[in-house]
Amino acid sequence: MNYSIIRYILGWICNFEAAFMLLPLITSIVRHEPEGWSFVITMGICLLIGMPLTFRKPKNMVYYTAESMVTVSLSWIVLSVLGALPFLFAGVLTNPFDAVFETVSGFTTTGASIFSSVEDLPHCINVWRCFTHWVGGMGVLVFILSLLPLTGGAHMNLMRAESPGPSVERMLPKVRTTAAILYKIYIAITAAMMVLLTLEGMPFYDTMCISFGTAGTGGFGVLNASCGAYTPLQQMTIAVFMILFGVNFNAYFLIVMKNIRGAWSSEEPRAYLTIIAVSVGIITLNILHLCQNAGEAFRKAFFQVAAIITTTGFSTADFDLWPPLSKTILVILMLCGACAGSTGGGFKVSRLVILFKSMHKEILLFLHPNMVHKIKMDGKTVEHDTVRSINVFMIAYVLIFVISVLLVSLDEWDLVTNFTAVAATFNNIGPGLSMVGPTCNFAFFSNFSKVILILDMLAGRLEIFPMLVLFYPGTWRKH
Amino acid sequence: MNYSIIRYILGWICNFEAAFMLLPLITSIVRHEPEGWSFVITMGICLLIGMPLTFRKPKNMVYYTAESMVTVSLSWIVLSVLGALPFLFAGVLTNPFDAVFETVSGFTTTGASIFSSVEDLPHCINVWRCFTHWVGGMGVLVFILSLLPLTGGAHMNLMRAESPGPSVERMLPKVRTTAAILYKIYIAITAAMMVLLTLEGMPFYDTMCISFGTAGTGGFGVLNASCGAYTPLQQMTIAVFMILFGVNFNAYFLIVMKNIRGAWSSEEPRAYLTIIAVSVGIITLNILHLCQNAGEAFRKAFFQVAAIITTTGFSTADFDLWPPLSKTILVILMLCGACAGSTGGGFKVSRLVILFKSMHKEILLFLHPNMVHKIKMDGKTVEHDTVRSINVFMIAYVLIFVISVLLVSLDEWDLVTNFTAVAATFNNIGPGLSMVGPTCNFAFFSNFSKVILILDMLAGRLEIFPMLVLFYPGTWRKH
Repeated sequence: MNYSIIRYILGWICNFEAAFMLLPLITSIVRHEPEGWSFVITMGICLLIGMPLTFRKPKNMVYYTAESMVTVSLSWIVLSVLGALPFLFAGVLTNPFDAVFETVSGFTTTGASIFSSVEDLPHCINVWRCFTHWVGGMGVLVFILSLLPLTGGAHMNLMRAESPGPSVERMLPKVRTTAAILYKIYIAITAAMMVLLTLEGMPFYDTMCISFGTAGTGGFGVLNASCGAYTPLQQMTIAVFMILFGVNFNAYFLIVMKNIRGAWSSEEPRAYLTIIAVSVGIITLNILHLCQNAGEAFRKAFFQVAAIITTTGFSTADFDLWPPLSKTILVILMLCGACAGSTGGGFKVSRLVILFKSMHKEILLFLHPNMVHKIKMDGKTVEHDTVRSINVFMIAYVLIFVISVLLVSLDEWDLVTNFTAVAATFNNIGPGLSMVGPTCNFAFFSNFSKVILILDMLAGRLEIFPMLVLFYPGTWRKH
Repeated sequence: MNYSIIRYILGWICNFEAAFMLLPLITSIVRHEPEGWSFVITMGICLLIGMPLTFRKPKNMVYYTAESMVTVSLSWIVLSVLGALPFLFAGVLTNPFDAVFETVSGFTTTGASIFSSVEDLPHCINVWRCFTHWVGGMGVLVFILSLLPLTGGAHMNLMRAESPGPSVERMLPKVRTTAAILYKIYIAITAAMMVLLTLEGMPFYDTMCISFGTAGTGGFGVLNASCGAYTPLQQMTIAVFMILFGVNFNAYFLIVMKNIRGAWSSEEPRAYLTIIAVSVGIITLNILHLCQNAGEAFRKAFFQVAAIITTTGFSTADFDLWPPLSKTILVILMLCGACAGSTGGGFKVSRLVILFKSMHKEILLFLHPNMVHKIKMDGKTVEHDTVRSINVFMIAYVLIFVISVLLVSLDEWDLVTNFTAVAATFNNIGPGLSMVGPTCNFAFFSNFSKVILILDMLAGRLEIFPMLVLFYPGTWRKH
């Protein structure tokens, strides 16, 4: 294990965290809020830790998969613990577990909240909550990669460990260039959304926070009714952008590279849009009797499906009151998740597509045992190693899910609450059903359950294995 | 597709079904029950179909995996449809879907019932219900194999398609001999159980039915309180035998072959017993406050864990009233299931063990990418194909589970009911939670949901793939 480079990157994480806090600090100055001081103090602490760690560049730049896994996990933990301090300093939360929960929920773009009334929070705190979504959505290390000229070693590993989805393609020879282009796309779409919402008459403060939450597919809002208080046009705009941020960024990359045909023929976005269309259709019919007209039913169904499949978690309706069929579809969409390589969480559509294909292959093998059958995606053969790692991912996913539900059920709440609380945090969605429904919050859980849910959020965002490697005893053994 | 051999085996299924009905017929004669006629009529129908089909032996004995998959699926469907007739002829059920549900639930050893009061049923009907468990537990085709001198072809495929678990080992050169020995072990343990229960003072009729239900890990009882009305000693006896029938029969085979060390060192039974011990321990502590003393808590926990993990589904307590932790453990045990090569259903412990090992291997691969790591079970390397097929099994399992919950939720019951109804039928357990809890029945579901649950029971018993192959359009295309 190359400790010096881990130390170095963690140092930069602290420095960048201080930089991120400039935005809420500015907000507090503009709004004359005394809570701004909590950010000043936290920035001081961040720099006090970060500066000495980044003072000297490490000589040994050797950097393997194990190191990148550990770095990514530790980075996210450091980021969350430091990011939780303003909540405590500003006095809006007193329990440190609550503060870390809220911050992890922010950075992992989960959007599950401890607060029962976000309208009572200072503006700077809400901006910080929503900005963590935006930072976490694309990935902090990807951000650092695009700015820092880190020499040597396998940067690819780092990016791969942090980015959602089964595989990050090396789209350009230089990882740093790829990262920079991805971030430019991210900023451009976020900016487009802010412009549109402003034109539609939303106040700037709401526009900024909602756009951050949508871009990171997070889900923290600034109103207690989440997005229920916005106009139908604004709601539809948010829903469309949620879906856009759930598309594999490779597709946008290809569009930027003027390869429109390549973007159009990608299998994953098409599967993703098909799932959305089918789900919206069924739910619209299913909730028709609860709405005034078909238009309202469609709008609610469309918004909710977009919010759940992209794991954003905004809401315009209390879907906990919808019929069982709609609720079941939403739970399944929770597990399904958005495209790989997007800011969305969950299992990822491309993994599902490959799993379906490998099941089909297995049936064919029964019928024609001697036939050679290869699994293809976008016309290219999916390598055996990818299929195996997806299988193992699914196993790890199910096992962690089951163990989490078991541990959370020590809290004695009902089964639907426990199950959907784990589903909503592990898949970085936000709201679940029953006691963690869209109108509720997570404050009532015990500290122990909060720790479990915090680990689930991190494991979900980092796609399980970095966290598993971090906690695996063999990682820390001397070789 | 070799249709002549499929026809031939299906014919024998009909003939054997007629033979199986001798037992309830004798019961009706002894008990002077007029419902015996319904068995006489059904036996006539069975023979009328079976005799012509088995009159001529097929010339072409070529028999590949596809044929065996189709034969097994069709055999179980034929068996269930014919087996449902006595319920209709005797007038205890009027809805044909209910009758098929009850019979499939019997043969697949699920034990989910339509009847709200089994005490009101004629004895011969109850004997038939319980006897279907015993027949289905070990597998009908295995039974036929051990009696019929079918020449040529791959009998192994047939046995493999019907037997629960990832792989049937060819323990003796001749499959027929293996099948015969397995059936002798099955009969011997069932007989031992009947003797013990009789010595403990249980009436012969109860003894016979309960032993059939236990041996097949089914769950149909003859009292409305399931096993709650029996003495503590009788309950403990039943629980111990449930666990014994959940052990991989290979272990007994090795004991019969005087290879005690081999039986003791098998990994799967040890993992299975460990899971039972841990679960019983936790649940005992968790329900202590609901019981009069620790002994009662232990007895209830032990019985329920044994009933659920072996997928038998007997009950001595209404565990729907237990705390969430205990309920969650029971739901997880539902999914886990017993050993491969036993009469129990579910996912199977050996699959879980191999999945855990392959996850461990994946973590090791992150740390040491160039290391060669092989998955071992009982000291032998698990072949790559086995690991792959287990992975695919898991995918198919989860997908069918999700789709079933979705379709059943069209019925508008609550989520826990839908989820555990699918879990309880797909894993061949019997009772679930909420509206399908241990004191309830499945009669309230719509016919559509009953069909889904029937298919789930069959898919669960036959380990998914035979049913998938049956419904896969390519199977029936001319090549």
